[in-house]
Amino acid sequence: MINTGVIGAAGYSGIELIKLLLSHPGAEIKKLYGDSSAGLRIEEIHPSLRNMISMEIEKLSDASLDDLELVFVALPSGASFDAVSRAHERGIKVIDIGGDFRLKNKEEYRKYYKHDHAASSLLSKSVYGLSEWNKTEIASASIVANPGCYPTSVLLPLIPLLKNDIIKEDFVSIVSFSGTSGAGKSVVQNMLFSEVNENVRAYKVGDHQHIPEIRLYLEKFSGKAADFSFVPHLLPVTRGIYTTIHARVREKISEEAVAAAFASSYGNSKFIRLLAPAIPEMKDVLYTNFCDIGFKLTENNMLVVISTIDNLVKGAAGQAIQNMNIMSGWPQETGLLSFNDKENQKKK
Amino acid sequence: MINTGVIGAAGYSGIELIKLLLSHPGAEIKKLYGDSSAGLRIEEIHPSLRNMISMEIEKLSDASLDDLELVFVALPSGASFDAVSRAHERGIKVIDIGGDFRLKNKEEYRKYYKHDHAASSLLSKSVYGLSEWNKTEIASASIVANPGCYPTSVLLPLIPLLKNDIIKEDFVSIVSFSGTSGAGKSVVQNMLFSEVNENVRAYKVGDHQHIPEIRLYLEKFSGKAADFSFVPHLLPVTRGIYTTIHARVREKISEEAVAAAFASSYGNSKFIRLLAPAIPEMKDVLYTNFCDIGFKLTENNMLVVISTIDNLVKGAAGQAIQNMNIMSGWPQETGLLSFNDKENQKKK
Amino acid sequence: MINTGVIGAAGYSGIELIKLLLSHPGAEIKKLYGDSSAGLRIEEIHPSLRNMISMEIEKLSDASLDDLELVFVALPSGASFDAVSRAHERGIKVIDIGGDFRLKNKEEYRKYYKHDHAASSLLSKSVYGLSEWNKTEIASASIVANPGCYPTSVLLPLIPLLKNDIIKEDFVSIVSFSGTSGAGKSVVQNMLFSEVNENVRAYKVGDHQHIPEIRLYLEKFSGKAADFSFVPHLLPVTRGIYTTIHARVREKISEEAVAAAFASSYGNSKFIRLLAPAIPEMKDVLYTNFCDIGFKLTENNMLVVISTIDNLVKGAAGQAIQNMNIMSGWPQETGLLSFNDKENQKKK
Amino acid sequence: MINTGVIGAAGYSGIELIKLLLSHPGAEIKKLYGDSSAGLRIEEIHPSLRNMISMEIEKLSDASLDDLELVFVALPSGASFDAVSRAHERGIKVIDIGGDFRLKNKEEYRKYYKHDHAASSLLSKSVYGLSEWNKTEIASASIVANPGCYPTSVLLPLIPLLKNDIIKEDFVSIVSFSGTSGAGKSVVQNMLFSEVNENVRAYKVGDHQHIPEIRLYLEKFSGKAADFSFVPHLLPVTRGIYTTIHARVREKISEEAVAAAFASSYGNSKFIRLLAPAIPEMKDVLYTNFCDIGFKLTENNMLVVISTIDNLVKGAAGQAIQNMNIMSGWPQETGLLSFNDKENQKKK
Repeated sequence: MINTGVIGAAGYSGIELIKLLLSHPGAEIKKLYGDSSAGLRIEEIHPSLRNMISMEIEKLSDASLDDLELVFVALPSGASFDAVSRAHERGIKVIDIGGDFRLKNKEEYRKYYKHDHAASSLLSKSVYGLSEWNKTEIASASIVANPGCYPTSVLLPLIPLLKNDIIKEDFVSIVSFSGTSGAGKSVVQNMLFSEVNENVRAYKVGDHQHIPEIRLYLEKFSGKAADFSFVPHLLPVTRGIYTTIHARVREKISEEAVAAAFASSYGNSKFIRLLAPAIPEMKDVLYTNFCDIGFKLTENNMLVVISTIDNLVKGAAGQAIQNMNIMSGWPQETGLLSFNDKENQKKK
Repeated sequence: MINTGVIGAAGYSGIELIKLLLSHPGAEIKKLYGDSSAGLRIEEIHPSLRNMISMEIEKLSDASLDDLELVFVALPSGASFDAVSRAHERGIKVIDIGGDFRLKNKEEYRKYYKHDHAASSLLSKSVYGLSEWNKTEIASASIVANPGCYPTSVLLPLIPLLKNDIIKEDFVSIVSFSGTSGAGKSVVQNMLFSEVNENVRAYKVGDHQHIPEIRLYLEKFSGKAADFSFVPHLLPVTRGIYTTIHARVREKISEEAVAAAFASSYGNSKFIRLLAPAIPEMKDVLYTNFCDIGFKLTENNMLVVISTIDNLVKGAAGQAIQNMNIMSGWPQETGLLSFNDKENQKKK
Repeated sequence: MINTGVIGAAGYSGIELIKLLLSHPGAEIKKLYGDSSAGLRIEEIHPSLRNMISMEIEKLSDASLDDLELVFVALPSGASFDAVSRAHERGIKVIDIGGDFRLKNKEEYRKYYKHDHAASSLLSKSVYGLSEWNKTEIASASIVANPGCYPTSVLLPLIPLLKNDIIKEDFVSIVSFSGTSGAGKSVVQNMLFSEVNENVRAYKVGDHQHIPEIRLYLEKFSGKAADFSFVPHLLPVTRGIYTTIHARVREKISEEAVAAAFASSYGNSKFIRLLAPAIPEMKDVLYTNFCDIGFKLTENNMLVVISTIDNLVKGAAGQAIQNMNIMSGWPQETGLLSFNDKENQKKK
Repeated sequence: MINTGVIGAAGYSGIELIKLLLSHPGAEIKKLYGDSSAGLRIEEIHPSLRNMISMEIEKLSDASLDDLELVFVALPSGASFDAVSRAHERGIKVIDIGGDFRLKNKEEYRKYYKHDHAASSLLSKSVYGLSEWNKTEIASASIVANPGCYPTSVLLPLIPLLKNDIIKEDFVSIVSFSGTSGAGKSVVQNMLFSEVNENVRAYKVGDHQHIPEIRLYLEKFSGKAADFSFVPHLLPVTRGIYTTIHARVREKISEEAVAAAFASSYGNSKFIRLLAPAIPEMKDVLYTNFCDIGFKLTENNMLVVISTIDNLVKGAAGQAIQNMNIMSGWPQETGLLSFNDKENQKKK
């Protein structure tokens, strides 16, 4: 049983982490941290947690970190430098849900995140937490930069296609739709119910901060550089990401070859469900750590690949737990597939 | 570990039962039954179950029931007579999620359900499964009639108020709003997305089949007969029930007295969360077995009581699991509050 | 053709007024006013208005009011005192969409609106703009206090029932559900899409500012004082109000008598559609100035009455136009039922 | 004033046509036709029309068509052959909202619509009703095949880009999202609210019947054949289409050149609103005949073009009215922009 803390417990990723940790057989929540919420009890902030946990939210301090072995940091971009540094200095493992430790280049960070990086010395120490592709590095990491929700939904289907020479690199179009919880709880007018309901809008076309993250890790894990465009859209749903990708297949690539590429990459991955030739529906992955992938090769040889995840689970808290499992030497599914834990329990 | 089956596995309550049973430490799913879905695999009907369970759906037959100790019946009204009878005759315990075994009077059944009762000899044997109020009868029952979703949301707040002489019986108005999953998967025009979205409508005003159920069990558990009106509304949400009740308090009843009545009834009930003076929000109970209850006494001495549940969990599959726990002698929370099971596990 | 201005053009009622005025055959938009939006063009604030109107938003000043004959004030509560006073002093007719001039008693105003009334000398001059019930006063008014959205949906069904001795006055329960646009564009956390979607919550139980407004005008127009409770709920829809009322009928009152009471009050009102015995659906009134009313008398003599309106039209901008028509001596439907204007046009 | 009829009055396009015709200054509704709805009054089918129109729905017969000058046909694919033929034979102008007369090749029709074309001799007589691009042919047409909702949202942004040599033809990816009203009122399980809400799904990937329609008219109006892929998605909104297109620009094409291409095509089109560099939001076009178009050229020279329309207005009934206006020699905006009609009225 390891002792964990959650820094940024009041947000949407925070509560998701708390719920997953509460039922995790190997982890205990010892501390919850907040800033404006410090002094309140967590069940006052998230009434859905009443009768499940009762704990006061604290301000982060060095002393308060004693006894912790691993902290999850779920803070907005630019707000995590202090927390990650402090925990790291005290030898506590860190899984950062936010975007501050994913890029390796601080100039690129400044360009896309619009502020300076205040802990750039740690960039080289952080390990990208795409569980299915970076298991070895994650296992021994002291800081894991948990992937963004959009990049998770993009990298999981695209890496096998590039790595296995299925698609051409010169033109990949990526269209993603996200629920509103991805924007967190910050209070801005265009996130009001009246502004989002019965509406669709693309945003940050061409300059979303997840573009360099996708570029960096697509190349790292596939070994190929692709020329892509990424256009995120906001939808009137609370949770979930749905990503529709177009690319040209190389000559003589059949649907079977596409399926084989996915199977070779994910045959043993419990959380990747390959559907081809069916098309995934977003509702089938909500509240789970699954990523569903489907595809179709059109008559004129365009490959349409679709993936879907829950942005708060596989796109945030769930993958963070998966990474904690890897770092702790436990099966990746621990605490994420309850029936699985039951099977393991019975075997004992 | 008891062997269970789910009859009516293809519906919305069916999948909810399957998910809860998969992670339940004391129960095993041995059989899934369906009619039009027989021959298909459950994960073809509910793609969200892929990688969690893989099992063929069977047609119900006597032989197929061998080895089962308990069956959940999740069929539309009027369709459960055969299944309940067969299972009961073979000595298998039955928890019926549907409405067919809740009323005791077959004439009243015909009046509200619009067809005859084809297994009326079993009416006297069935026990009403309102877990918090009928524990002793449930514990030794062979057939449990699981409460309706609306009655659960109405009885839980009203019984303590009548039983403890808080409100007058002569005029209780009950207004409930339900998500669409309560209507099941039957394909009717007025349940199309285009007809429900951005809409509200009351329905079955004065003749909903849950009216006699509320009347019968309100009197049974409170010892008082109240004159009430119940008006259900359909809302553009998938899950959840929200019930707003008005009644006159008796003389000199304070908010403290109301709170005390609730506390005396539910002080030890893990699933009833008393919020007064706060007002519950529906989202806080979704995907859980909790019932949140709040209230306000107005300046002119009208008592407003509000309760909310997830119609598919506390209003159907969750309360069914709670009843299975009672029938099996397990703690009521088993398999319904994962962190609780974890605590129990650690104690061993 | 009269010259009009809209003060508070940037809000949800503002845009609704603009759209209605654009197609109104008797009125011209001469000025649009705003505060933080001053200097911008209206089509920058409301992109849906592009190619329909192009006009700069001005700061309100005495000089800028020259040439106007009537102004609509669509400001949050507490913000309209200056605008209404200025326009009134210059002899310009005022229709105030907000709540500041509806109550007659400044102590009651302070109690419910939580701030002082800064133009209380005008309270006695303002006329309540419930078009169907106050036509004579409205016709000669210089300041019309346009009714609130909830009060409109409550008063229209209740006045005829009290006035015609249909229901008892001692216990009327009123449960209303509103879309989010009723809360305006103010940016607060609990109006975020993620907080409202898939949710229902009651709010301001027992102390909503519309309670004294309902009480005052129910008595004024019906001649009876009723003891009622009003509980508003927020729903995940953008527009619309749905109100479900319970009351006891007096002895020997039949459904026919109820229908007759409504017919005698609204037989000539184009905008009130009587449905009994059918139950209204909210979607049927959206984007219109109609109020649909239905009812059902239950077996145990409880009367359930349901009304529904579009909160931004009949509950705000539409009724304001209806009042402008009355003040101008035009048919009430002018500009609100386009087919009607067409008929009138043809007759010329 | 011309006499019109609506065949298929009970559907979602039917009611939209009725509402537009009711306020149109040049057209009169003389007949409404239906099949299963024949004998009922239109306001029983669409309660939102009460107090606006009261007319019995008739079964189509030769005699009943007397006196009509123009009929709108709003029937499901495959159901319009008889209606279009009959009306055409009697010299009545036809505007067919459905898909049966858009393609020119009956083999292609069979391939995509999955049944034979039963009036193929009329295919050569029908004229494609893309108002902004085919005005001359429409003006003298006896049968207008009104464009599909998706093709309207795709052709309007793409034609200028191809025609003006802005983009390369070898790879155009088209991703569209539609509200549920596009699927009509047919009662199928996957259109239930519970199945669509909080969900996204792509469908008919690579074989949607709008693919050959897009191909045919893209080439007809731009003079270029492009190799494209079209993937439609279903969203949890009732109305609206949002289309996001990716293409490679030709060398040295700037954002200014893109804007100029759009301006040269639509500078005089009241219904096309060019937003670049802004990104359109779907809510801004709902309930209007506008098509909003925006775009962005990314750092790596990919052009992202976005268009949005109301599927029931510009994508169906509104464009049909626009075509009636063209066929009748009236300004295209007649009856579609009420403020415009008001201006015209004043000029007289």
